[in-house]
Amino acid sequence: MEFADRVVAAVRRKGNPVVVGIDPRPEELPAGFLDRFPADRRGVAEALKAFGCAVVDVVAPMAPLLKFQAAFYEAYGPEGMAALHATVEHARARDVLVIFDGKRNDIGSTAEAYARAYLGKEPVGGAFEPSWHADALTINPYLGTDGVQPFVKIASREKKGVFVLVRTSNASAREFQDLVCDGLPVYRHVANRLKDWGKGKQGAEGYNLVGAVVGATYPDELAELRSELPGVLFLVPGYGAQGGEAKDIAGGFDADGQGALVNNSRGITFAYKKPAYRERFGDDWQRAIEQAVRDMIDDLAANTPAGKLRGG
Amino acid sequence: MEFADRVVAAVRRKGNPVVVGIDPRPEELPAGFLDRFPADRRGVAEALKAFGCAVVDVVAPMAPLLKFQAAFYEAYGPEGMAALHATVEHARARDVLVIFDGKRNDIGSTAEAYARAYLGKEPVGGAFEPSWHADALTINPYLGTDGVQPFVKIASREKKGVFVLVRTSNASAREFQDLVCDGLPVYRHVANRLKDWGKGKQGAEGYNLVGAVVGATYPDELAELRSELPGVLFLVPGYGAQGGEAKDIAGGFDADGQGALVNNSRGITFAYKKPAYRERFGDDWQRAIEQAVRDMIDDLAANTPAGKLRGG
Repeated sequence: MEFADRVVAAVRRKGNPVVVGIDPRPEELPAGFLDRFPADRRGVAEALKAFGCAVVDVVAPMAPLLKFQAAFYEAYGPEGMAALHATVEHARARDVLVIFDGKRNDIGSTAEAYARAYLGKEPVGGAFEPSWHADALTINPYLGTDGVQPFVKIASREKKGVFVLVRTSNASAREFQDLVCDGLPVYRHVANRLKDWGKGKQGAEGYNLVGAVVGATYPDELAELRSELPGVLFLVPGYGAQGGEAKDIAGGFDADGQGALVNNSRGITFAYKKPAYRERFGDDWQRAIEQAVRDMIDDLAANTPAGKLRGG
Repeated sequence: MEFADRVVAAVRRKGNPVVVGIDPRPEELPAGFLDRFPADRRGVAEALKAFGCAVVDVVAPMAPLLKFQAAFYEAYGPEGMAALHATVEHARARDVLVIFDGKRNDIGSTAEAYARAYLGKEPVGGAFEPSWHADALTINPYLGTDGVQPFVKIASREKKGVFVLVRTSNASAREFQDLVCDGLPVYRHVANRLKDWGKGKQGAEGYNLVGAVVGATYPDELAELRSELPGVLFLVPGYGAQGGEAKDIAGGFDADGQGALVNNSRGITFAYKKPAYRERFGDDWQRAIEQAVRDMIDDLAANTPAGKLRGG
């Protein structure tokens, strides 16, 4: 099944558009967690894997997608990448779609190598084998079409997806993304190209394998892009820890509650650090995570078109 | 010593500004090379490591810098990253500076995680250890200042460097980088911010730890940026396989031959595939690589201010 159709089906089946972001920072792991592992690099990587897999076990029955932030694993070198690989494999066996958040970008054959790495297959001993089993990859468009097309080509062939950074959620997003050229800000020029990149890549449900990253922290731009980019799946970061609220995200959805996938990373995986959850669940960090997912689902259902997904 | 000072000293000592790019593609390895390794993922990774280390051994006595393209190692998963790590360690012991070409980008604490990964240190068992020993990292500016400053902060603390994509070497670079806003193309807006990012980060030799990637394939823009960005080290891709010639690069140098670091990847590491080298060296791919470096050094010396570095 095409990537976009798998997304729509998973969102429908689970009744919500939540993407749980897994960004493990050793210094934020639950008290005592790190102490169970050797105090060396491999031990930290093992701890990241154990924590990530435990988070997956809690959230996979509820959330349709997981997003892994590569940086926090790359930080621990090849051992960290091995921990990420094992965690992704753990997730794959649990009926969730996996987004590899690496914001990769390069030109021509190098972009294709990244695409094959995360979405495709590599030549190994006369056959082709996948290195990673991600369903989608985030990419950065600064290099233009010939830096994006290799990702789209491989994603299309492998029935995977890409999410192109269009409008990011950070405060400085405005600096280059909002520069106005020929009457349109740069991010709208990127959005216009994105339509070209997705031509003919629509799935049966009407959504495209070329998606867009659009931050929750810019509600006007989000709503504007929703009407400019019909059939484009939005990956929406910035809810929770970065200050985006459900009402800010409402404009990113289509009327039936599809079309926007809302990410929350620290707000879920480190929910046990928040006073409200700590009071209720104490050191039971897994129950805090579970409740944080439920609370996010309820918040989106009450304040955005995602409410239509319930019972659907 | 500050990163930029180490670069200037290395360029002066070796008498040339060559950056050898190591982008190993299994399908382009010398005939029979892969057959010496097991026909599985680990075997391919071992082959990449053996090839990369052999290239390092040939080029390190001549070239002041090496640039490793992450994509080709990431393509083979954690095993590929382990191969890259081992190759970087091999290079470090051989008196060359190492650029990790990953074009990383993200916001806030995630950008900082990437920066710590490649340029800094990570907490491990109560101490701090480096995961990678790169001297510099390439980064993408699309997210703006708060996506760049974490890299600059860590680089500054660790006496490392960053190279910000300003003007890339590919054909589609024009698409977004040349959009004109307030009378200046986007890449010039990036260049202007780059001046801010580098404020107070100048080394004793007058060059900054915040460098710029500027493609060899756009000679006019390269010369224009050279005069706009005094004291900024340029990492110049696009020479050789991508069609940039020495005369196109001349405008990227300062008068004394410093200031531009010229990368060549496939043109050197796969020199043995070119008829001229094949005729001369047959299957001796290491001699072909060595000659390709010498030829590039001579070409730059004859046709750019890098000639001033000789005997200096």
